[in-house]
Amino acid sequence: MSGIYKKIEVVGTSPTSFAEAVKIAVKEASKTVRHMSWFEVVEQRGAIKDGAVSEFQVTVRIGFKLEG
Amino acid sequence: MSGIYKKIEVVGTSPTSFAEAVKIAVKEASKTVRHMSWFEVVEQRGAIKDGAVSEFQVTVRIGFKLEG
Amino acid sequence: MSGIYKKIEVVGTSPTSFAEAVKIAVKEASKTVRHMSWFEVVEQRGAIKDGAVSEFQVTVRIGFKLEG
Amino acid sequence: MSGIYKKIEVVGTSPTSFAEAVKIAVKEASKTVRHMSWFEVVEQRGAIKDGAVSEFQVTVRIGFKLEG
Amino acid sequence: MSGIYKKIEVVGTSPTSFAEAVKIAVKEASKTVRHMSWFEVVEQRGAIKDGAVSEFQVTVRIGFKLEG
Amino acid sequence: MSGIYKKIEVVGTSPTSFAEAVKIAVKEASKTVRHMSWFEVVEQRGAIKDGAVSEFQVTVRIGFKLEG
Amino acid sequence: MSGIYKKIEVVGTSPTSFAEAVKIAVKEASKTVRHMSWFEVVEQRGAIKDGAVSEFQVTVRIGFKLEG
Amino acid sequence: MSGIYKKIEVVGTSPTSFAEAVKIAVKEASKTVRHMSWFEVVEQRGAIKDGAVSEFQVTVRIGFKLEG
Amino acid sequence: MSGIYKKIEVVGTSPTSFAEAVKIAVKEASKTVRHMSWFEVVEQRGAIKDGAVSEFQVTVRIGFKLEG
Amino acid sequence: MSGIYKKIEVVGTSPTSFAEAVKIAVKEASKTVRHMSWFEVVEQRGAIKDGAVSEFQVTVRIGFKLEG
Amino acid sequence: MSGIYKKIEVVGTSPTSFAEAVKIAVKEASKTVRHMSWFEVVEQRGAIKDGAVSEFQVTVRIGFKLEG
Amino acid sequence: MSGIYKKIEVVGTSPTSFAEAVKIAVKEASKTVRHMSWFEVVEQRGAIKDGAVSEFQVTVRIGFKLEG
Repeated sequence: MSGIYKKIEVVGTSPTSFAEAVKIAVKEASKTVRHMSWFEVVEQRGAIKDGAVSEFQVTVRIGFKLEG
Repeated sequence: MSGIYKKIEVVGTSPTSFAEAVKIAVKEASKTVRHMSWFEVVEQRGAIKDGAVSEFQVTVRIGFKLEG
Repeated sequence: MSGIYKKIEVVGTSPTSFAEAVKIAVKEASKTVRHMSWFEVVEQRGAIKDGAVSEFQVTVRIGFKLEG
Repeated sequence: MSGIYKKIEVVGTSPTSFAEAVKIAVKEASKTVRHMSWFEVVEQRGAIKDGAVSEFQVTVRIGFKLEG
Repeated sequence: MSGIYKKIEVVGTSPTSFAEAVKIAVKEASKTVRHMSWFEVVEQRGAIKDGAVSEFQVTVRIGFKLEG
Repeated sequence: MSGIYKKIEVVGTSPTSFAEAVKIAVKEASKTVRHMSWFEVVEQRGAIKDGAVSEFQVTVRIGFKLEG
Repeated sequence: MSGIYKKIEVVGTSPTSFAEAVKIAVKEASKTVRHMSWFEVVEQRGAIKDGAVSEFQVTVRIGFKLEG
Repeated sequence: MSGIYKKIEVVGTSPTSFAEAVKIAVKEASKTVRHMSWFEVVEQRGAIKDGAVSEFQVTVRIGFKLEG
Repeated sequence: MSGIYKKIEVVGTSPTSFAEAVKIAVKEASKTVRHMSWFEVVEQRGAIKDGAVSEFQVTVRIGFKLEG
Repeated sequence: MSGIYKKIEVVGTSPTSFAEAVKIAVKEASKTVRHMSWFEVVEQRGAIKDGAVSEFQVTVRIGFKLEG
Repeated sequence: MSGIYKKIEVVGTSPTSFAEAVKIAVKEASKTVRHMSWFEVVEQRGAIKDGAVSEFQVTVRIGFKLEG
Repeated sequence: MSGIYKKIEVVGTSPTSFAEAVKIAVKEASKTVRHMSWFEVVEQRGAIKDGAVSEFQVTVRIGFKLEG
């Protein structure tokens, strides 16, 4: 990959699935971070309401290239 | 969150996806446990049959409020 | 389960979801490995392109029975 | 210690400190569980409100002797 | 394995060996839990008396099927 | 919790206790970060001077909501 | 130890003990692998039947020298 | 920090709090160890008596400089 | 347990079993250490010779009371 | 150390060694971050090209003092 | 990265440094494995002889693409 | 390896590299410990001064044979 990268941790939430929560987290991060290159799943949790899963929460570490 | 909570570990299974297995685990737990508030994914495994995934298995830790 | 098993690590990739990446990894492994019995998710990562998730990558440990 | 023990996971909360949250968790568990013998701290988290810590949350695993 | 499972943590003790402590833990659990299917070793400790091992203690997580 | 969150790691220090170090870390972070929601204790260390504890150091991961 | 080594993961099973399961795993591996030098215990699990341990399962990582 | 350091593990106990248990462990270690520089919390447990916490136990790793 | 404890790490070896290796480690430690109270298994490895297990190696952390 | 610190995660790359990759990561971070005090190695990976290591990649967590 | 990858674990040894041990492990693996793409450091150990380091040992997990 | 071994934790520091820090730690330990046989890297950290790495710090666990 060469170059210097920074990693940040973002939590995405979705009522549907873990994959969806990851997509939302990355999409949101793209508003302020450029040159994102990869993500690593750090934690998978969720909320329960009235006896059913109401939300999937995924913490991802996102790596992006620092502009030299 | 305030109050006292208990955590139990439940394993849900689904032929479709990890998210589905979590939903099934929580739904089943709701039959005997009230006031469930959140879940944490602890382990993701699965069964293989005839060279293909036949089942997704997810262990979730479920937190629920103890009624004072 | 009785008998002796071996575990190998395979990484599957999918543009859609983690579950799909697992299915692809197992399907591919089935071309050269027989008697596969279970898998364990070891790592979940992915690639990002143009500010959006372009690929889900899942490392699975696959257990299969050694033929005595 | 000899004998058979069971472990359960309880989350205590306190506005003051981690030690206080542990005490509250054990005190509450004592209402329904007898012969408790030890606890292990599993996780320490908390809530933030208006830029200040509003609650300490400690997950403890409590071991208690099963009555033969 | 299909179906829903619950996991509980039990500590067995034995003056002889770790395997014996596991057997005792499972045997004791069978008095109140039905449909037990597998166990996972979580921790291995023990007591020392007069400069010699006096007791092996094994914490096992036991998985059992919930009756639908 | 719904929405997107970011996590940052801050180290607080206190001559008194771990809880105090957490409070100081959060208080300081509040000067530049808004919408903080929860913290997770990551590491607990400290300094020793003249044979006595001179400082408690706690690393906390703080989660805060990103303003859409 | 000097030289280059490879590690493989094998699961041995035994109705008697963990040590026995390790011996069986290594013995079986010796049929196809030469120059085995050491093993590391990675996981200890087992099966339960009719309320009693029916099988000990040990995953070992086996290191063996690659023939230059 | 420069120089060579050694780390030892000490368990301190206190009826009051985790911070107090750490202070006691360090204070006691200071009777035989010189040039102690820092500590790392490794484990937090405790004893329960009559349904209430009777003792906080903290294992700390203490680093001290070796006198050249 | 009250009082101050120290932990040391010892590796015991046995041609027979893990339990035997633990017993040997504790027995040997008793020659120079007094007031030993408990042990924790940290690592289980072993040597292989001529395609068979030749030695079980267990690393145990031993806790003993410091004489005030 | 007293005061409040923040930790960030940076990945440095070098064709030569892990130490070199760390130096480059820190050097680069110094362009935008002041008062850096220490680093912790979190992960060591690398790229392979044409059957040989082409790049060492080290993820370091860098701690720096927040200016009060 | 797209496609399916397999991971193997190799231990390289060098009298000089960890980086050198990694290079040797990869170089040796290249004799029998094609399409190697990345490595992950899993463990760093070494041998001591006559009071000095005589060998650095690094376990690396190597990922390589499976030829479809 | 047969026999009984003890493990101690030592931190070595070097302005040059991690490998150098390990060598220095072992060399220093050799002044008071005999029959050292192997080391395991436990932690890799370092100090930063004026925006550049000023010191590599490696914690190694050193195993040495107890003289029977």
